[in-house]
Amino acid sequence: MQKLGTRDTLVDMTMTTGLDGDRLLPLDPRTREIARELYAVVADAPILSPHGHVDPRMLADDQPFADPTELFVTHDHYVTRLLVASGASFAELGLDSNRSAEPRDVWRILAANWHRFAGTASGYWLAHEFQTLFGITEELAPENADRLYDRIASTLADPDFRPRALFDRFRIEVLATTDDPLDDLAAHAALAADPTFTGRVLPTFRPDAYLDPEAPGFAERIARLHAATGTATGFAGYLAALEARRAHFVAHGAVSADHGVLEPFTADLDAADAERLYAGAIAGTLTADEARTFRGHMLLQMARMSVDDGLVMTIHPGVRRNHHTETFRRFGADRGHDIPVRTEYTENLRPLLERFGMEPGLHLVLFAVDETVYSREVAPLAGFYPSLFIGAPWWFLDAPDAILRFRSAVTETAGFYRSSGFIDDTRAFLSIPARHDTARRLDAAFLARLVREGRVSLPTATRIAHDLVDAVPREVFKL
Amino acid sequence: MQKLGTRDTLVDMTMTTGLDGDRLLPLDPRTREIARELYAVVADAPILSPHGHVDPRMLADDQPFADPTELFVTHDHYVTRLLVASGASFAELGLDSNRSAEPRDVWRILAANWHRFAGTASGYWLAHEFQTLFGITEELAPENADRLYDRIASTLADPDFRPRALFDRFRIEVLATTDDPLDDLAAHAALAADPTFTGRVLPTFRPDAYLDPEAPGFAERIARLHAATGTATGFAGYLAALEARRAHFVAHGAVSADHGVLEPFTADLDAADAERLYAGAIAGTLTADEARTFRGHMLLQMARMSVDDGLVMTIHPGVRRNHHTETFRRFGADRGHDIPVRTEYTENLRPLLERFGMEPGLHLVLFAVDETVYSREVAPLAGFYPSLFIGAPWWFLDAPDAILRFRSAVTETAGFYRSSGFIDDTRAFLSIPARHDTARRLDAAFLARLVREGRVSLPTATRIAHDLVDAVPREVFKL
Amino acid sequence: MQKLGTRDTLVDMTMTTGLDGDRLLPLDPRTREIARELYAVVADAPILSPHGHVDPRMLADDQPFADPTELFVTHDHYVTRLLVASGASFAELGLDSNRSAEPRDVWRILAANWHRFAGTASGYWLAHEFQTLFGITEELAPENADRLYDRIASTLADPDFRPRALFDRFRIEVLATTDDPLDDLAAHAALAADPTFTGRVLPTFRPDAYLDPEAPGFAERIARLHAATGTATGFAGYLAALEARRAHFVAHGAVSADHGVLEPFTADLDAADAERLYAGAIAGTLTADEARTFRGHMLLQMARMSVDDGLVMTIHPGVRRNHHTETFRRFGADRGHDIPVRTEYTENLRPLLERFGMEPGLHLVLFAVDETVYSREVAPLAGFYPSLFIGAPWWFLDAPDAILRFRSAVTETAGFYRSSGFIDDTRAFLSIPARHDTARRLDAAFLARLVREGRVSLPTATRIAHDLVDAVPREVFKL
Repeated sequence: MQKLGTRDTLVDMTMTTGLDGDRLLPLDPRTREIARELYAVVADAPILSPHGHVDPRMLADDQPFADPTELFVTHDHYVTRLLVASGASFAELGLDSNRSAEPRDVWRILAANWHRFAGTASGYWLAHEFQTLFGITEELAPENADRLYDRIASTLADPDFRPRALFDRFRIEVLATTDDPLDDLAAHAALAADPTFTGRVLPTFRPDAYLDPEAPGFAERIARLHAATGTATGFAGYLAALEARRAHFVAHGAVSADHGVLEPFTADLDAADAERLYAGAIAGTLTADEARTFRGHMLLQMARMSVDDGLVMTIHPGVRRNHHTETFRRFGADRGHDIPVRTEYTENLRPLLERFGMEPGLHLVLFAVDETVYSREVAPLAGFYPSLFIGAPWWFLDAPDAILRFRSAVTETAGFYRSSGFIDDTRAFLSIPARHDTARRLDAAFLARLVREGRVSLPTATRIAHDLVDAVPREVFKL
Repeated sequence: MQKLGTRDTLVDMTMTTGLDGDRLLPLDPRTREIARELYAVVADAPILSPHGHVDPRMLADDQPFADPTELFVTHDHYVTRLLVASGASFAELGLDSNRSAEPRDVWRILAANWHRFAGTASGYWLAHEFQTLFGITEELAPENADRLYDRIASTLADPDFRPRALFDRFRIEVLATTDDPLDDLAAHAALAADPTFTGRVLPTFRPDAYLDPEAPGFAERIARLHAATGTATGFAGYLAALEARRAHFVAHGAVSADHGVLEPFTADLDAADAERLYAGAIAGTLTADEARTFRGHMLLQMARMSVDDGLVMTIHPGVRRNHHTETFRRFGADRGHDIPVRTEYTENLRPLLERFGMEPGLHLVLFAVDETVYSREVAPLAGFYPSLFIGAPWWFLDAPDAILRFRSAVTETAGFYRSSGFIDDTRAFLSIPARHDTARRLDAAFLARLVREGRVSLPTATRIAHDLVDAVPREVFKL
Repeated sequence: MQKLGTRDTLVDMTMTTGLDGDRLLPLDPRTREIARELYAVVADAPILSPHGHVDPRMLADDQPFADPTELFVTHDHYVTRLLVASGASFAELGLDSNRSAEPRDVWRILAANWHRFAGTASGYWLAHEFQTLFGITEELAPENADRLYDRIASTLADPDFRPRALFDRFRIEVLATTDDPLDDLAAHAALAADPTFTGRVLPTFRPDAYLDPEAPGFAERIARLHAATGTATGFAGYLAALEARRAHFVAHGAVSADHGVLEPFTADLDAADAERLYAGAIAGTLTADEARTFRGHMLLQMARMSVDDGLVMTIHPGVRRNHHTETFRRFGADRGHDIPVRTEYTENLRPLLERFGMEPGLHLVLFAVDETVYSREVAPLAGFYPSLFIGAPWWFLDAPDAILRFRSAVTETAGFYRSSGFIDDTRAFLSIPARHDTARRLDAAFLARLVREGRVSLPTATRIAHDLVDAVPREVFKL
């Protein structure tokens, strides 16, 4: 095999040695043929990524990636969590700030546990990345760990592996990041102003910590918010401050505001109650129930602001963050122990939908990590409210079988056009093509089955397959 | 193609141009062959429809259907809801009583949004009806909307498209309607007395609004109930009045009483508590908790009456009706925004089952729109209580994939003979054959898989396929 | 066919007349081929059964089985429950201690209702046993009921059908029983001391009734516990007594402690609160909430003891026992009306996991009868906590489709190596091979699909298939 890393020998993204060219397509031969046709329609379509966690500075700075371990292990807590579950300590994985770990040693831990990733979404994406980006078709193992580490490391030094080069190679048209409301969005501005970079990197307004009186440091954060926006204190000033920051995001190209909440509870308070709870929130005197009500009212206020400024509102509820307190205390957030809980939308969202559900222009995308809501709540809601879209399978459910279960659960009630199109939600930049490719293959597989079952015609399936990666996300996320 | 609408050119119901003759059958060729054999056993069996919402006056009067829009769109809120979700207003759809809409314009809205129905149960049924009844094999689209409208409209004028002619053509043997307890059942009586009509059209006792103290107009409704039955006021008189109306239904051929409740909560009150809550219900003074207890006691009383008079008791809980209050206020009930909520049977039904669960002759059919209860609660309950049957997939779950998920979820615990047989639950008369055909194909598909997996022999599968459309519903619904 | 029951004519366990040799394998031919290969790797592997309910005295005494009815019907409440649901009375089934029933008459009831078991797990296991043990390839029916009864009865008299002979023939290496904490474990000791018996029959510590203040006879039971262990009264003595009995079990080879709870609620009390609640528990004065807190604290204490003594902790929550009180009162426990309820792990287990979740050596296996927790809670928890393993599908979910749904739900998040390996949980000794064979076939089927979908390589799938019946249960259950 030729040396990788020069433009003319770059591994073809569609290369299928090792990776099965028909991977994820249906098993039945005739159905697989149809799926192959449908997949071919979208395989090379540009990537629209309207929700994710890539750091925009990575693209603004365009520096080479450090090493294979940082790239594939340390920064991906969905890899490290399974290594922790397999017995590795945070220190051994280089996640303890008090102790350093040799990147190569961490990589060897991954290699020793590689069989534990078999069948997981993370393992599938990594295998896809290893092959399409580094031409690695053998399975990672203790025996080849060092050799593959070196191979990847040497490739990373190549200019074609810089973030912007990969951005182009991945055919990314739009990439949304997730940002703090007080972020100056300088990286986004720099990219937008740079004539040599033609992609769209859009900020996303993520105000969770500014809406939850029980978030640590709430009062200080709100004080900073008021200071940054020059707004008066009090509830009206608080709303004005949030509106001002949203306007700042809109001015920098934002198309959506993202909301991660434990429950999608909403409440519609009158002005006096809102003012009173806000005062208590700042004073730190709210009961748990009052704090919940305040959060619920603020989620409804976010919908109101979205009606006003047009930002798409995405909600992904149902996760108990930082389940193991000691791990959080020692190693910080995003360490793989955010654990889902049961979610309820029908009653929780009703106050919001009573007020804004029929509002023209409002787009509300509901994600879920509780599969039970798909057929029971989300599809029926999206089958009526024009504002409401069914978010793509999120987080743990962004995986092949789960994606098919999702389509099966929602389509019969709401069709394809009430769903959001795929979002990758990733901070692992290199995994973006693998993730979108996975979704495209699975939508092709699902549609091919419906064709073969006489439920959708092939021309209609072809139109849908294309719309799901193009017209649908453009419409839902106002791209 | 010849002109449709005269007896000798009527489109054959089994015609398969356009509609795939193997639609909904398994993809694997050998399994599909077996499924085809099993389906053939039941494809032409008479239709037993023991629960639905067809208006009996339609059959009593036997007038021609008005126009394609009324027939397929306006009266089917599972079509209009998806058009609303797609941006159409109630007025544009002809659902605003203050503004009329041209039927042809409404039809054009359906045509423009037809791709949004791809993959939905509604879309599948409509396609089935368009082809089998009107010979339409092309997909509805803006380009052919007017032409297809005219074609359907001209066919509707034909005497063979009158309700009774279709009733015969559909091979309907039994059709149950759903009726208010104070309904005089004159339409049912007229049909029974008419020697030219040989079908059985049975009323179903649906007392929800008479059992819920929080239903608007409860006291007035109960006053009318007392007046109509000449019963004394007080709880005993109230029970006697309900029993009298049930007797009226039994006398008119009713085989079941149907109960739509938010939760299947039951309670077993002593006489004094029941009397006290009844008084409060009439006076409108119950707390929310008391109202819930009263409803729970009345659901248990309904089981008691079913033990006495033999009416099969069907319960379909778990739907928050009229989710968007403003839509309900302006456009009335049944507008597509009845949204499911989580349901619990094990604890809720226990008081009822403690009293009557082992009672010989009681038949209690549990429907669900919350799929999580299938394997967890309903199948285990039906696997023990002889009174309890697993209702067919209901409402949003009456769709191909959902039906297979249902069989998969309940069969391993409870077998086939604890399930109810199919119910269509429809007010769309023309969709009845499509819906029953769908269920028959999917049961054949499910059974064929079990045969191929070595879990059920072909002779046993054949017996089951037949029983599911014949012996099972006859037994469960006492037909 | 030759007479059964002498060693040289015993029906081969792998015989496939009647039973399809490819049963439960995927339908697609190429996928089936791969599954066949994977299954071949494990088909004859020894059986590790780390959780079940076989009576150890059966093996210690090694007496012949009484008759076909006792063997296949009376003692298997998952057979009798479906006969009850089908209309048989407990008396007719020989389950009413006040009335005897002829075994042959009970058998005829089974035969008359055999079609009702089609598609159920119980029916599948019985068919497997009938064929592999008695060479019966025809379906049970009223016409052959007596003949098959006689055939089985005559075989049972053969020495090769004694429990120990079958134990060897089934290739059982380890069989765990479930035992009361005060059990002297004499049967286990006798088996361990017997040089002619080489299998490992391990006791399991099952303390539910000793941890629940609301269990009937709690105070008396604890008094017996104190008496048996010579421990002081008071909470410290109570803990010491439990520790002493666990030590007794460990000394007799126990590897695990098993916990059946309504909910997996845990609580971490300080010493004073624990002491106070314990006093109330003994005095019978706890409120329902206090009793719940006490149970939650004791479940956490059980984890603490497992950290100390190394016993694997298994938890199987979520079942409302003895749902129909009158049946329980008249016919006792385990009569088929234990009905699942919704279960929650994320919040309930948090106190326990905060304390012990990262503890080296602790093994905590979570079973479930509520499928919704698989992808939402159990797989994410097991994907982080090294102590936590995903229990095999339990009880109603130990069935072919349910097992595949389980693998599909958990694997993409947690892989294969965070799952427990199969447990049969059975009191029906003869069903053990059928149950393990089922799990092996379905894991082969699931893996073959992943291979064909390009998600797992065939060598890796082969390794996993083998590990799931060997390395995985040995590690998880410390065998």
